[in-house]
Amino acid sequence: MTNKIGYLGPRGTFTKVAVDAIFNGENKQSYTTIPECIDAVEQGEVKFSVVPLENAIEGSVNLTIDYLIQKKLLKIISEIVVPIRQHLMVHPLNQSNWKEINFVYSHSHAIAQCHHFLHSEMQEVRAEYMTSTGAAAKFVSDNPELKIGAIANQLAAEEYGLSIVQKDIHDFTNNHTRFVVLHKDNYELESKKMEIKGHKTTLIVSLGSDQAGALHQVLSVFAWRRLNLSKIESRPMKTGLGNYFFLIDVEEKMDDVHIPNAIAELESLGCKVNVLGSYPYYTYNGLSVNHN
Amino acid sequence: MTNKIGYLGPRGTFTKVAVDAIFNGENKQSYTTIPECIDAVEQGEVKFSVVPLENAIEGSVNLTIDYLIQKKLLKIISEIVVPIRQHLMVHPLNQSNWKEINFVYSHSHAIAQCHHFLHSEMQEVRAEYMTSTGAAAKFVSDNPELKIGAIANQLAAEEYGLSIVQKDIHDFTNNHTRFVVLHKDNYELESKKMEIKGHKTTLIVSLGSDQAGALHQVLSVFAWRRLNLSKIESRPMKTGLGNYFFLIDVEEKMDDVHIPNAIAELESLGCKVNVLGSYPYYTYNGLSVNHN
Repeated sequence: MTNKIGYLGPRGTFTKVAVDAIFNGENKQSYTTIPECIDAVEQGEVKFSVVPLENAIEGSVNLTIDYLIQKKLLKIISEIVVPIRQHLMVHPLNQSNWKEINFVYSHSHAIAQCHHFLHSEMQEVRAEYMTSTGAAAKFVSDNPELKIGAIANQLAAEEYGLSIVQKDIHDFTNNHTRFVVLHKDNYELESKKMEIKGHKTTLIVSLGSDQAGALHQVLSVFAWRRLNLSKIESRPMKTGLGNYFFLIDVEEKMDDVHIPNAIAELESLGCKVNVLGSYPYYTYNGLSVNHN
Repeated sequence: MTNKIGYLGPRGTFTKVAVDAIFNGENKQSYTTIPECIDAVEQGEVKFSVVPLENAIEGSVNLTIDYLIQKKLLKIISEIVVPIRQHLMVHPLNQSNWKEINFVYSHSHAIAQCHHFLHSEMQEVRAEYMTSTGAAAKFVSDNPELKIGAIANQLAAEEYGLSIVQKDIHDFTNNHTRFVVLHKDNYELESKKMEIKGHKTTLIVSLGSDQAGALHQVLSVFAWRRLNLSKIESRPMKTGLGNYFFLIDVEEKMDDVHIPNAIAELESLGCKVNVLGSYPYYTYNGLSVNHN
């Protein structure tokens, strides 16, 4: 059986930062879309895949959730939270005169995330879109003769040999992206590199009826058991507008009593419940790791 | 005072479809990022701006919400829901031999949304990323001598004179994007072109405490008044992980009694409440509109 790790590429992206933070030295295989990452696990091409779940630059959250729900065969076995830090970088030959750059390249979301910086500090510089922050860094690396810069993360600077000239130019501090590790079954993945911060159980709950207060009834099931919810989100079902399901993160490891009883109670209320996984979560502290 | 309408460009995007569906003939100005659209309203460059709020291809939802909350000065005055329909299109000169194309260009999210189609029907064709679906359509239009196609919407086909050779190649039907119209104040915007489907009031609620059951308590305020919620989403506050606020859509127009009383009750529980807007919503039926 393969031991390969799939991830949403290309090199120099935030997903790669997440993969390198949790896995060490394994054979890593990049894919170009989230569905390809998910299919690769299902078809046994890779053992695990790492994809963004929330607030990513490269990927769409909705896509990950939609595919996981449609497939229903994969489990979330781990979560890693990575801080989103954007830096301005140039070719080393342009390091001393970086203030003369005319163009800055990046993914459109990264440019939007650095709106205040670009607007106040670099009014004369034109922002141009690339397909990813990694592609922007590669373009700057390939064209030392041009007076250009890229907005990307530290890994991209390392991968493409660029010099960071302004650190942390993103507008919002405390901006994070959640990545998840997917596998065919439940699996105890212990990262040797990071400490477990806690456990979560992710449930997909679809309501039996659409009446006012149905969600309130669902939450009662958790509230009276003192099960804390760290996230709740209503999302439209693909059966048409107005039909919603709920994505609920319970701040507990799956146990023998409380969560199974809560699920049984939800089902008796007419809800459908699907457990997407019960897993540890990690926070990447931003220290350097081996990117191989 | 200006009567211009700002929107997230470029031409041929889903945001442009939304703008054209709600406004007719006014002077429209495209911007390249969501923060630019929001700033333009605030600084009086445009009277209204149209930006994606949920599930868009071109923009990040999180950005829109983050900027609206940070600014606090703008109101949502209207919502329009647009079905996401992706088509395969080629240059008219290649219409008869479109099955011979070697490359298909589009935004990465659009390519991911058409994963099943590309995987099953076009295995030999390589997908290449562009910065937007509109940019992909323009590239195909500019290069009739290449055996290439684009994945984009009908408007892009019209704008760039391309022939649609496969309709509706997206994996999920019933996929929609919500766009909102922003203005400096509350404003009764009546679209002459579409029928109002209903009204919503969008609230941002931050909890006074993080204890188990706090959200349940918040929802009780709505449940006993029989105020139906069409959406609820917890989102991290920018003060660090673990602090959440809630984005709540109440399926009612702001009234003199029920919603103000619910807000007063939430405040007495220690919550902060901010009304992002009370507004009509429209659904674009997909019929052709004048794109000017």
